[in-house]
Amino acid sequence: MMNSAPNNLLAGAPAVLNVGIDAFNASVTQHGGTLVNVDWRPPGNAQPLLAWNLARALADERIDAANAEATQRIIGARPLWEDIALRADGVWPELRGTRLVLHAGPPVAWQAMCGPMRGALVGAVLYEGWAQTPEQATQMLARGEVEFAQCHDFGAVGPMTGIISASMPLIQVREATRGRRAYTNLNEGIGRCLRFGANGPDVLQRLKWFENVLAPVLKAGVREVFEATGGMDLKAIQAQALLMGDEVHSRNAASTSLLFMQLAVALAAPRVREALPAGHVHQALEFIARSSQFFLNYSMVSCKAIMDSAHGVPHSTVVTATARNGTETGLRVSGLGPQWFTAPSDFPQGLFFPGFTQADACPDIGDSAITETAGFGGCSFAASPALTLLAGGSVSDALRYSREMHEVCVTRNPGLSLPALDFAGAPCGIDVRKVLDTGIRPVMTTGIAHREAGIGQIGAGIVRVPMACYVRAFEAVAAQILR
Amino acid sequence: MMNSAPNNLLAGAPAVLNVGIDAFNASVTQHGGTLVNVDWRPPGNAQPLLAWNLARALADERIDAANAEATQRIIGARPLWEDIALRADGVWPELRGTRLVLHAGPPVAWQAMCGPMRGALVGAVLYEGWAQTPEQATQMLARGEVEFAQCHDFGAVGPMTGIISASMPLIQVREATRGRRAYTNLNEGIGRCLRFGANGPDVLQRLKWFENVLAPVLKAGVREVFEATGGMDLKAIQAQALLMGDEVHSRNAASTSLLFMQLAVALAAPRVREALPAGHVHQALEFIARSSQFFLNYSMVSCKAIMDSAHGVPHSTVVTATARNGTETGLRVSGLGPQWFTAPSDFPQGLFFPGFTQADACPDIGDSAITETAGFGGCSFAASPALTLLAGGSVSDALRYSREMHEVCVTRNPGLSLPALDFAGAPCGIDVRKVLDTGIRPVMTTGIAHREAGIGQIGAGIVRVPMACYVRAFEAVAAQILR
Repeated sequence: MMNSAPNNLLAGAPAVLNVGIDAFNASVTQHGGTLVNVDWRPPGNAQPLLAWNLARALADERIDAANAEATQRIIGARPLWEDIALRADGVWPELRGTRLVLHAGPPVAWQAMCGPMRGALVGAVLYEGWAQTPEQATQMLARGEVEFAQCHDFGAVGPMTGIISASMPLIQVREATRGRRAYTNLNEGIGRCLRFGANGPDVLQRLKWFENVLAPVLKAGVREVFEATGGMDLKAIQAQALLMGDEVHSRNAASTSLLFMQLAVALAAPRVREALPAGHVHQALEFIARSSQFFLNYSMVSCKAIMDSAHGVPHSTVVTATARNGTETGLRVSGLGPQWFTAPSDFPQGLFFPGFTQADACPDIGDSAITETAGFGGCSFAASPALTLLAGGSVSDALRYSREMHEVCVTRNPGLSLPALDFAGAPCGIDVRKVLDTGIRPVMTTGIAHREAGIGQIGAGIVRVPMACYVRAFEAVAAQILR
Repeated sequence: MMNSAPNNLLAGAPAVLNVGIDAFNASVTQHGGTLVNVDWRPPGNAQPLLAWNLARALADERIDAANAEATQRIIGARPLWEDIALRADGVWPELRGTRLVLHAGPPVAWQAMCGPMRGALVGAVLYEGWAQTPEQATQMLARGEVEFAQCHDFGAVGPMTGIISASMPLIQVREATRGRRAYTNLNEGIGRCLRFGANGPDVLQRLKWFENVLAPVLKAGVREVFEATGGMDLKAIQAQALLMGDEVHSRNAASTSLLFMQLAVALAAPRVREALPAGHVHQALEFIARSSQFFLNYSMVSCKAIMDSAHGVPHSTVVTATARNGTETGLRVSGLGPQWFTAPSDFPQGLFFPGFTQADACPDIGDSAITETAGFGGCSFAASPALTLLAGGSVSDALRYSREMHEVCVTRNPGLSLPALDFAGAPCGIDVRKVLDTGIRPVMTTGIAHREAGIGQIGAGIVRVPMACYVRAFEAVAAQILR
């Protein structure tokens, strides 16, 4: 890999062309050498059989056609916020009278759970009244007296720990093109929150206020919108917000304000305002106006509705869900059914709030990576230079992430413009084949949770999906699609 | 100015280095020649005496110190929306019982007025009930039975024609650092509007609705905010909006939504909502939510309050107002008192709505160029790539305009970050000396009015301030400051 050019030989300093692993580069430049680094990784994760199957898969026209169909479904999806379900067990009878709790990411056992996930489950047990003290709740959970399931299996998503239990109100979205419904919980704002594993009285009291005040107000507002227009067009808000500095995963300032405007107009309609107790609308609007991430859950459920409509296309290698439980990260793939392809979660890198460091970080957690699968977040980082203020990096990094993501995606979404890239469409449809072929691990923007329960968010940054997830997914592609 | 490099001589094709006027360049490149163009203009507008005085002014430390003071006042200004004045003549006794109407820009006689300005004045006469028909109103105006004055002389600004008459409600802003007040009228939304010279029954009816519904609702909301916090911080909204795709002159989508959120929360407070007639809050919020330029007037009055605080610094060559009446463009300069330095307005260049062309455009009009003097609009074009969708040009043009404006400004405003320029502060304080020294005419983002009354907005784009304005201002600098 070494070449000395004549004029450098004369000068006595080496000139090096390095291909691939850059471990030796520092020693060259430290000694005054000239270095050209070619960023190359062997395709197929350096595994010969995988590389062979990858070559076959990349040449497979059935897969290309299936991926075109999957991405057309993403592009054509119309997620509409149509209602608030006042109780989760009203939507899912499986939660009624049982001790079943939904959480983010792929399956994980109590013993393997990270601190925030355990803390949030303790909170859910207290909130539902199944135990009276955190100690009782912990014992109940350790004895296996509470059942767990995945949000994704219920057509739902939840940020961070993603806990959804029987009494929680849900945002209900309908994907109007194919008719499927999707659900999520309500955003708790910042500070101590159940989604970060906090479970103190203040956290539980806020959840009760959601039940009694926020959810009924939201329901009244969205039903007014629904009667006028059939629902609030969440993708229209997301697309507008990309022109306004949001990537609608880690930054939702514009999208929250756009949702707020539509909601506040509906709530001011005389018949709506007369039907709600005095002060409730004021409390609800005040809460939303100071929660700049309030739209995050709407963005997630919009993306869940979009991606479920693209799931189940035979032969498609498009990723339809990426989700993390704080221990493992998992993928689902359009043509490969409900199976999760998992690997240990990586740690987010970014900026930490004062007093915290990388050593405090919980491994990557939450269902919010659904936004990247639909073309937002890391795919649309170029739309959100302001996010670098929170998550670190420079504006050129933001542009680079979006360009990288385009290399692993099937196409661009003409409905989602990235202004800073001259209005190029956001990357659309992460293709398992392309991730392995390029060696580019998809990038996600994310909040960073403290690894212990209850401390909450300690920073924000980016994280990449483990390559092993795509390797495992591709092994299933080889076994089930290429055969 | 011509030089032939040896290797091009051999090839027989000319190689040309052109300095300054590029009129001959096309003929070089058409004949296969190589061209290097140096963008140079003689300083001082090619006038020897002016160039000599410019050299003296650029070396004058008193001017530097005065400009530092003026820009520190801009940076330190705190414009707070504190009230709605329900009638203009309640603020200014000069308007009470008289036929005095304020308009945008420097002074202009009825005979010299552009179509939209005449149309808007006819509208104001009808709105005030001084005449019953447009014909009567026109005759009254032509006979000199209505007096005119400049918004700027009353501490006010108005977009486009900028008409303010006795009965109109006003937005009232206080610059908290120095205590000065500034005023503007309410934004009428898009379509047929008085500010574009329309004066039909629909336009006048909307103005009456402003009096009876919108203004009292806004007043109730802002007084609630005022009692809690001393007023709504408009510069904070402007600064946030720069992170969200607005340059708060021609694009105000984010800023409108940020103002809307604060307003809607205040209006939902039980004591506020009980004090207003049922339905009025709903009507008002609905109107604002669909007027994405609603914040424009707030941005303008915020900038007027800021720039008035920077006006009157002895020896300062910082421009404190740029304003156009559709016929002429005028400047005011911090150290040169109330005098306007005027020249014929240029024509905006940009994108036209379907069915209209450049030939339909009215010369540059309106007080909204106050935003550029405070560092927004053209100065902050880099913040608003999305504006290029409306106004034309590419994203790289947007960045270039902000960089150009920095060349003619005193400093950068650390409180106004431009994300796409790696969060550099917005250019702050247009310096008459630097405009003449660089030959760069300051660029403004602007709506384009039809040259005839009543047709309204026909496009959006950019326009540059005539160089003659700065030449005249600098002649006054030479006479009054350098002597």
